[in-house]
Amino acid sequence: MSIKAAVRTLPDVRADFPGLTTDWHYLDTAATAQKPQAVIDATVKAMGRDYATVHRGVYARSADMTLAYEAARRRIAAFIGAREDDVTFVRGATEAINLVAYSHPRKGRVLLSMLEHHSNIVPWQLAGWQVDVCPLTEDGSIDLVAAEKLLTPEHEMVAFAHVSNVLGSPLDVARAAELAHRVGAELLIDGCQAVPRLPVDVGALDCNYYVFSGHKLYGPTGIGVLWSNKLDALPPWQGGGSMIDRVTFEKTSYAPAPTRFEAGTPAIVEALGLAAAVEYIAQHGIEAIRAHECALVASLREQLARKNSITLFGPENSAGIVSFAMAGVHPHDIGTILDENGVAIRAGHHCAQPLMEHLGVPATARASFGLYSNQDDVTALIEGLARVERIFG
Amino acid sequence: MSIKAAVRTLPDVRADFPGLTTDWHYLDTAATAQKPQAVIDATVKAMGRDYATVHRGVYARSADMTLAYEAARRRIAAFIGAREDDVTFVRGATEAINLVAYSHPRKGRVLLSMLEHHSNIVPWQLAGWQVDVCPLTEDGSIDLVAAEKLLTPEHEMVAFAHVSNVLGSPLDVARAAELAHRVGAELLIDGCQAVPRLPVDVGALDCNYYVFSGHKLYGPTGIGVLWSNKLDALPPWQGGGSMIDRVTFEKTSYAPAPTRFEAGTPAIVEALGLAAAVEYIAQHGIEAIRAHECALVASLREQLARKNSITLFGPENSAGIVSFAMAGVHPHDIGTILDENGVAIRAGHHCAQPLMEHLGVPATARASFGLYSNQDDVTALIEGLARVERIFG
Repeated sequence: MSIKAAVRTLPDVRADFPGLTTDWHYLDTAATAQKPQAVIDATVKAMGRDYATVHRGVYARSADMTLAYEAARRRIAAFIGAREDDVTFVRGATEAINLVAYSHPRKGRVLLSMLEHHSNIVPWQLAGWQVDVCPLTEDGSIDLVAAEKLLTPEHEMVAFAHVSNVLGSPLDVARAAELAHRVGAELLIDGCQAVPRLPVDVGALDCNYYVFSGHKLYGPTGIGVLWSNKLDALPPWQGGGSMIDRVTFEKTSYAPAPTRFEAGTPAIVEALGLAAAVEYIAQHGIEAIRAHECALVASLREQLARKNSITLFGPENSAGIVSFAMAGVHPHDIGTILDENGVAIRAGHHCAQPLMEHLGVPATARASFGLYSNQDDVTALIEGLARVERIFG
Repeated sequence: MSIKAAVRTLPDVRADFPGLTTDWHYLDTAATAQKPQAVIDATVKAMGRDYATVHRGVYARSADMTLAYEAARRRIAAFIGAREDDVTFVRGATEAINLVAYSHPRKGRVLLSMLEHHSNIVPWQLAGWQVDVCPLTEDGSIDLVAAEKLLTPEHEMVAFAHVSNVLGSPLDVARAAELAHRVGAELLIDGCQAVPRLPVDVGALDCNYYVFSGHKLYGPTGIGVLWSNKLDALPPWQGGGSMIDRVTFEKTSYAPAPTRFEAGTPAIVEALGLAAAVEYIAQHGIEAIRAHECALVASLREQLARKNSITLFGPENSAGIVSFAMAGVHPHDIGTILDENGVAIRAGHHCAQPLMEHLGVPATARASFGLYSNQDDVTALIEGLARVERIFG
């Protein structure tokens, strides 16, 4: 009832997205989201009439751009319930996790889960952490009962996905935070798939690091966010302009956070574009988007469950993402045939090879929704799968 | 004579740049360049009708975007005379230098110069290199005679700016390469100020790493280039999606270069925008741009030299950049008063505090040209400085 009411509040927004061309069913939003015209317009303005550098110019346009850049930081911070000083602009979630993994002053044991994206595995390995792995529940969620047993006072860090990019499984972050903090560990949350789909309030979640990419949040490529309430304790990582206090060849001192982590000319235009994306999402309401995607997931899962050839992965409460396999057909073939029907899904390991091994498959087919997705997309996918079944007999 | 002929070949391009509003004299191109409409158009297309992720999609639009992304790499490689496999997309020159400084397997002694930008000082310090400093000649160029004496077989690396961002001094890169290689050291060149101003052929320069930022090359923010003929010898730095071969929790193996260095979803839109910028520059010809900027530098230096209150820094053959001081007036006051006249210059330490200390000043005023600059800009600057002189009496 409440979900239905909320769904009704989300209007058809396809016309806002120039990338959603006619008769194209884009079901790969978990890979990257299409951009609303508002984001493109903000980009054009920032690259054109308003363009200047930030932080350095003594002329008016540069001062104005600095204000706009910092206003973008404030807008994005507000979107996740954060203080602006705790928000660092980075290239994407990948850089954010690398930054924490490399610059953390205590590189000890980190507990990851079996469903993590490579971006939340490889940085810890490369930076020299000792990696422990939390198993999954039967339905493909991170098993927090197992996590509680695995965690020891030797763990400095727990790093989990808020929503699995393959299975859509949402994490009870507050519970994970409780478990991590009980043994003195910090909690990093990979929020890439969660910020576009769930209300996120970093204060209520009680995590220590929350990272996400702009391009999955209907914003530009080339930008992402590292939020942390522990930034002051992190030493600098990348060196360069802006992040310093005083440079000599003998000794260099550094600016306070978040400036300390933004070496070089930042992604100025992209920051303004991401703020426009957040504004666009806020106009529609993340609760309405959540309800809309829940309804689409329920509809798709129900129709897929009726097909004998289909194996469904992930829990029923998947956030916007549905992974599946079809007996005797490689996911790449599914994707290729669907493409001929104008249906774009992802097929592959989804940068989550350990999870594929756990599931016992080389790859899955994955459909993922955005706020512009609709029942026509679901219908087209189901019809396309019927054609796959016919072709493979 | 030849310079004049070449200047005539460069048409008035101001109308191509929506950021160059009427009656505004933008003389801060060394900080960041304005963008031609062609770059904005390429950005809008890539964010809109053509938008998709790269490397992963099994559907046509993603395959097309992958081709466009790799074509952008090829276009940019050709612009600097490089093989495409030697070109890695990074966030900017700052990240490129950090990548080399951090991932280099032999962190020993590095020879920098007194005029380096902080982005070519701080990464080496943070990554644990032992820094030696090459002095400058009287006119503010890197003193290669001194470099020859300083270099020892203990040096693993020499890292110099191709063109000083403060003084405009161009470096004889081929000679620097000869000196570096003679002792077995590699040569990294910070090309940020050179690629927009001089013909660059990395093969002829004989360096090992050449780095630059897109936004100073009339392209987007959020992207830059690391070129190297030594990429294969560099281990991975940032971990994440795409840069791997096989990931397990026990052991991860990595993709070949340049993929190994492009963790996560790349700055797709920005890569296409940068290729459009390079195409725009190539249409006009870097030789014509060079001649055009040389003429403007000569004109400005000549008029500044006539003023008793002005001290000029840097050599006569400065590439597009002129730094100066005015007796009794702080550069920030110069910049603020000029801004009231519609003239945008930079005033400050220009992220080169060691050079400021060497020059014995806290800051300089800096005017820098681009291919859209013209004699009106020079005249407006000179008239503005006359007003500064009147105000400060």
